[in-house]
Amino acid sequence: MSGGNRPEHLSRLSLNQETIRQWSLPELAEGCAAAGVPGVGLWRAPVRAYGVEAAARLMRTAGLSVTSLCRGGFFTAVEPAERAAALDDNRAAIDEAATLGTGTLVLVSGGLPPGSRDLPGTRARIADALGELSPYAAERGVRLAIEPLHPMYAADRCVVSTLAQALDLAERFPAERVGVVVDTYHLWWDDTVAAQIARAGAGGRIAAFQLADWITPLPAGVLLGRGQLGDGSIDLRWFRERVDAAGYDGPIEVEIFNPALWERDGAEVLAEVAERYASLVPVEPSPSPVPSGPPDPAG
Amino acid sequence: MSGGNRPEHLSRLSLNQETIRQWSLPELAEGCAAAGVPGVGLWRAPVRAYGVEAAARLMRTAGLSVTSLCRGGFFTAVEPAERAAALDDNRAAIDEAATLGTGTLVLVSGGLPPGSRDLPGTRARIADALGELSPYAAERGVRLAIEPLHPMYAADRCVVSTLAQALDLAERFPAERVGVVVDTYHLWWDDTVAAQIARAGAGGRIAAFQLADWITPLPAGVLLGRGQLGDGSIDLRWFRERVDAAGYDGPIEVEIFNPALWERDGAEVLAEVAERYASLVPVEPSPSPVPSGPPDPAG
Repeated sequence: MSGGNRPEHLSRLSLNQETIRQWSLPELAEGCAAAGVPGVGLWRAPVRAYGVEAAARLMRTAGLSVTSLCRGGFFTAVEPAERAAALDDNRAAIDEAATLGTGTLVLVSGGLPPGSRDLPGTRARIADALGELSPYAAERGVRLAIEPLHPMYAADRCVVSTLAQALDLAERFPAERVGVVVDTYHLWWDDTVAAQIARAGAGGRIAAFQLADWITPLPAGVLLGRGQLGDGSIDLRWFRERVDAAGYDGPIEVEIFNPALWERDGAEVLAEVAERYASLVPVEPSPSPVPSGPPDPAG
Repeated sequence: MSGGNRPEHLSRLSLNQETIRQWSLPELAEGCAAAGVPGVGLWRAPVRAYGVEAAARLMRTAGLSVTSLCRGGFFTAVEPAERAAALDDNRAAIDEAATLGTGTLVLVSGGLPPGSRDLPGTRARIADALGELSPYAAERGVRLAIEPLHPMYAADRCVVSTLAQALDLAERFPAERVGVVVDTYHLWWDDTVAAQIARAGAGGRIAAFQLADWITPLPAGVLLGRGQLGDGSIDLRWFRERVDAAGYDGPIEVEIFNPALWERDGAEVLAEVAERYASLVPVEPSPSPVPSGPPDPAG
């Protein structure tokens, strides 16, 4: 890992690539390195299009840590053939995560199968899938990270809607195999989230911490309405303090899906992200004897 | 109350007027009476435009019970003048409910004030407002019914997002003064909702039970995307059984906001609502010695 001229206050910042999806992978690597941002969160589709090995080399050469791969999951199908295909696809995602050198595969579990109204049965199938996949992932040094999605996605994307539910699932497995994602966008409204962050931290379950702000009105389809840090309703500092207090010292990933950001110059967007991060999310204390940066997969 | 030729299986059905907003109040009264639907849920704006006393007479003459008035609330402002105006407006809503002969004023509590990120403070102001309003309402025979809204409305409409939160607020006051609304659209995703319905029933807190289905994709603004019963992801029968088991025997109100229903013939929509209700929501057992219809405010 290089990083000679990296600002200390960005030492835990990671840019999820969908935030600046107008960038190719080489642009992403170059842009993050230039801005002193030490981590990137990657998505499977662009990584596969570029080549998984090549993407891994690209990030390693730029001195960047891959803090997570998005995403596995979508394993709620009832039909055996569909279910088997989903598990195969998740094994491929685990392999890709291992190749990229990230220990974290984010899981968006999946919604109700078409025509189904059976939330408990759907959630049970997620637990079964985790049971099948977690040994495979562990052998490759990858932890499965269950991401609770906002309840507005419960029908069509993810029946895991709260951090409590994600932990109920994760805690069936060893902490080093299955963790959870704390994403401010999905969890900010929940009055039990402080207690659940503490629970997650006590169990060593926080696999990722992601930031985006909540802005209204929501767009049709509600997928691409996330706000730049500071533009919305979420007390990001409050979340950071809770996650800190829970003992989490890993990467802090900014993941914003918003077409207005995609229309702008990528470097300008990244500078804005870094500036908002520095002003809204408490920065690191002055250099301490204990290293607290993101794990360096390149060793 | 007339109702000689009312079908027994619709004896608890109430039509919230926004479901068929193309109807004027006289059309609503006539349409419900003709269809054998014994209850209506009304909204303040059309009632005030028609005249509160006149609307009360209209419904009484048609033999209809007014099962709820929507809505009070929106009392999360910080500014004293704004807050006082909101409380005054809520007193007016309580007066209107009393005039209409309904014992239930539905409260949509309000979102974060502009620029605020303080969820706990905002929720505390709701408790304060309930403290100020509930004696006034009780003197007029009106119960305040806190409606938890789906978490996607937490920023701009209602920081009370779960039935547990609504009960935490309601339980500060006597049950006959402050209750809660169980609305399937807002609560269906929540894996704790069965326990919270039981808690609400045990405390005599269920002031209203409302039905709508969850359909995707959500429209921009996410206000007008509710589905006709049976068109979406919600197990309505499951909800009805839980509410029954909790001891609730009041009206069952259908409240769907969907422009596609507003473009159709009102009588046709109401017939469809009644048909879906009869097939999807368990109907009443054969006539029992204990009356279980909606309360008749006309005495």
